[in-house]
Amino acid sequence: MTTAIDLNADLGEGFGIWTLGDDDALLRTVSSANVACGFHGGDPSIMRRVCETAVANQVAIGAQVGYRDLAGFGRRRMEIDPADLEAEVLYQLGALDGFARVAGDRVRYVKPHGALYHAAAGEPEIARAVVAATRAFDPRLAVLGLPDSALLAAATDAGLVAVREAFADRAYEPTGELVPRGVPGAVLHEPDEIVARSLRLATTGTVVDRTGGSVEVRPRSLCVHGDTPGAAAIAERVRRALLDAGLEIAPFVPG
Amino acid sequence: MTTAIDLNADLGEGFGIWTLGDDDALLRTVSSANVACGFHGGDPSIMRRVCETAVANQVAIGAQVGYRDLAGFGRRRMEIDPADLEAEVLYQLGALDGFARVAGDRVRYVKPHGALYHAAAGEPEIARAVVAATRAFDPRLAVLGLPDSALLAAATDAGLVAVREAFADRAYEPTGELVPRGVPGAVLHEPDEIVARSLRLATTGTVVDRTGGSVEVRPRSLCVHGDTPGAAAIAERVRRALLDAGLEIAPFVPG
Amino acid sequence: MTTAIDLNADLGEGFGIWTLGDDDALLRTVSSANVACGFHGGDPSIMRRVCETAVANQVAIGAQVGYRDLAGFGRRRMEIDPADLEAEVLYQLGALDGFARVAGDRVRYVKPHGALYHAAAGEPEIARAVVAATRAFDPRLAVLGLPDSALLAAATDAGLVAVREAFADRAYEPTGELVPRGVPGAVLHEPDEIVARSLRLATTGTVVDRTGGSVEVRPRSLCVHGDTPGAAAIAERVRRALLDAGLEIAPFVPG
Amino acid sequence: MTTAIDLNADLGEGFGIWTLGDDDALLRTVSSANVACGFHGGDPSIMRRVCETAVANQVAIGAQVGYRDLAGFGRRRMEIDPADLEAEVLYQLGALDGFARVAGDRVRYVKPHGALYHAAAGEPEIARAVVAATRAFDPRLAVLGLPDSALLAAATDAGLVAVREAFADRAYEPTGELVPRGVPGAVLHEPDEIVARSLRLATTGTVVDRTGGSVEVRPRSLCVHGDTPGAAAIAERVRRALLDAGLEIAPFVPG
Repeated sequence: MTTAIDLNADLGEGFGIWTLGDDDALLRTVSSANVACGFHGGDPSIMRRVCETAVANQVAIGAQVGYRDLAGFGRRRMEIDPADLEAEVLYQLGALDGFARVAGDRVRYVKPHGALYHAAAGEPEIARAVVAATRAFDPRLAVLGLPDSALLAAATDAGLVAVREAFADRAYEPTGELVPRGVPGAVLHEPDEIVARSLRLATTGTVVDRTGGSVEVRPRSLCVHGDTPGAAAIAERVRRALLDAGLEIAPFVPG
Repeated sequence: MTTAIDLNADLGEGFGIWTLGDDDALLRTVSSANVACGFHGGDPSIMRRVCETAVANQVAIGAQVGYRDLAGFGRRRMEIDPADLEAEVLYQLGALDGFARVAGDRVRYVKPHGALYHAAAGEPEIARAVVAATRAFDPRLAVLGLPDSALLAAATDAGLVAVREAFADRAYEPTGELVPRGVPGAVLHEPDEIVARSLRLATTGTVVDRTGGSVEVRPRSLCVHGDTPGAAAIAERVRRALLDAGLEIAPFVPG
Repeated sequence: MTTAIDLNADLGEGFGIWTLGDDDALLRTVSSANVACGFHGGDPSIMRRVCETAVANQVAIGAQVGYRDLAGFGRRRMEIDPADLEAEVLYQLGALDGFARVAGDRVRYVKPHGALYHAAAGEPEIARAVVAATRAFDPRLAVLGLPDSALLAAATDAGLVAVREAFADRAYEPTGELVPRGVPGAVLHEPDEIVARSLRLATTGTVVDRTGGSVEVRPRSLCVHGDTPGAAAIAERVRRALLDAGLEIAPFVPG
Repeated sequence: MTTAIDLNADLGEGFGIWTLGDDDALLRTVSSANVACGFHGGDPSIMRRVCETAVANQVAIGAQVGYRDLAGFGRRRMEIDPADLEAEVLYQLGALDGFARVAGDRVRYVKPHGALYHAAAGEPEIARAVVAATRAFDPRLAVLGLPDSALLAAATDAGLVAVREAFADRAYEPTGELVPRGVPGAVLHEPDEIVARSLRLATTGTVVDRTGGSVEVRPRSLCVHGDTPGAAAIAERVRRALLDAGLEIAPFVPG
């Protein structure tokens, strides 16, 4: 039975004049911030502000590295050479770490974004490129990802801390994989359901899959979304419910 | 009389498939590399390779920060808010520093590129934004720029090491300012003249201005260009002449 | 006394996942759509959709050309060579015109965006570059801009139709210039005031300036904003008030 | 037996300060110019200049549309939604057509670039998106591509003129497919071999495949490369050899 759980969310995903989600509200709720690094979203001023607020709120800073594709928000798979991908991850990591350090902390973990998240979960070569960049940058960094994914396997192989996450608002296959976004019912919207599922994941480590069975996920972190209307309010309800159930909400990385 | 002089050049200024200058040749010649950071030129794979070669060749790595303008190669002035500029400089610094560290060193200095070089030379507010980012990132960093510029003044005010540079192939006004690029004769192309001028700058600290007078520049570093045909060969001739004159060529930053 | 007035608004200013303003609502309200062309905002899918809706709603399509600066939303002045600027305007015009034609119409006018709007209003060389591109593309195109600006003068000189616009929600100097955005009170937010000002502009051609005097603007078009909360509702109130006052709302370009 | 043959090359593939290939030399050699449209290479000033020179030299202008990926030069496959791809092709087509018209002609054909060329050759859904954009823009446009590809099939289905091309310097599989670039020997460099192969393709319609057999390609156009050292000289040798053999070199589209 889990007694400490982390809440993570994607943050800093605006760009220039455009905003996405309520960073300030989420930074009062989560314990880990996956900060966009400018390739799929985020810009220097946003990154700086998110890092400053995260540090002020004792939220751990993670690098949400993505494909260089602002037009597609990093959600379109790109067939990029692994060596180039490794360099692109290093670039993003370094850029974010500068802001984290100026704010008084440093980047604590890496979580790929969007299409890179899925590619690194399923394809060992891509997973290894992400992990190689992470390890080269700082071997103390953790890697956050899908349980039993190629990414977490590569992280473990490289001697990095691999952290399992679950999604509070996504439907699961009986295999433990996520139901793809396009499929009806893939994303849950009902707050009560999201809260109940979060509690179950945090306390039993399991989730009810789309066929009604139970899947063991054993997450150390729960991902709550930030980019939909009402997202911050739902995240806050999840947090409240976890605390009311006697759980501790804390980053998975040492402070 | 100067006995040690630094040679610096702009490097890593390609982007993707496009190349500019001969990085490998110049990295055998210069003692300091102003590495483009991806905003006006340079991409992650190029930055990584240049940092690795620089470290192998004991060339000091500097961040050549620029405006976010690939289409204009950072040569077009942009009216950017100083706080945003500061964040953009931090972003570029962090990104390059990651590659420098993975290669076994770290960024040692900052030199703005193109239109930002000129804006920071002349306008205190812009100079302060560049310096604030530099100092916040690492107060050990030096700032390389035009003698008696707003940039070097701001660096000195902030307690940073300010390093004076001269241009081996640019015409000077009697005031010590550069003759603007557009003006005929602003850029020298004759190798013998560039070599002679470099020697005089390194040994006497002075340059003959466009009116025939002598201007005191007292550079600690000479900038040689890398992006024109024959540039690497001219740079190598400058280096050879300086060594033959008994000068030591060494980075201005401690190794 | 004006009997027909045009309402124009900036539209299609999202980019990828990011939205800005309520295009669909505004396209039910305005008679002319200044469509972003991808350089400061807008992407191909957004441009296509806005053009299709504009044609369906009998809204005239204008090209809102801007600086190539997504990160700054085209609001940062760039010192771009006039010949390059001319080519950039042509590029944007052609791109938008393709969508307009596929939707069953064509681009009818040009209105520069953001920093280019202001630069073209004040500087003849920039105005001429915008006008030269417009004229080369199609001499039937109108140019929409600030009354008595360098832009409208250049358009007239080139034989193009120059159309005067006024801003329903901006404070005016006694000279007829806009109070710069940074100045307190530069942008009006009170719907009643915006409606009253619009009526006065449309019926008398004048506006009360920030000193309380009356300035003659004689607009053929009123610009209503679309990118603030409640903007579409205010625009609809302006439209309703103009119609109730017996004015006709119609594009300034022949259908 | 072919008596008229077209020579096409990729042109205008620089970006900003960066150049690629010798556009002016190639525009004296080829009869059709595949002009980059700004997404994978090319910028407005380059596009304008290439169109002007093409028209002056009576070279037909084609739109070389690509993925929005300057960093990867459009050579990296992107999983883009077909509707978005269609809009991106339309955008590029419109932008180039503006320059072509200002120069006195119009875009005559479409040829996808890089990864999009291969994706459209092999995948009907992608081929249909490219063809749908082309047809919507102007049903008189031809489509240039690999013989027996999904792209040419989709073009024919849509009532467009589908034009077969062969590569003077690429190795062929016995199936008529190109040997992938990564494979040793995939690209020929020996000028005599390239010239001989071009002659054979133009006079017999066949090419010797990598196993020594003969493959029927029946090209109406031969693609010569422009982005390697000596490319323009090789292209000129091909042209000379074809003329000496009594062939006519002419665009495949009516002038």
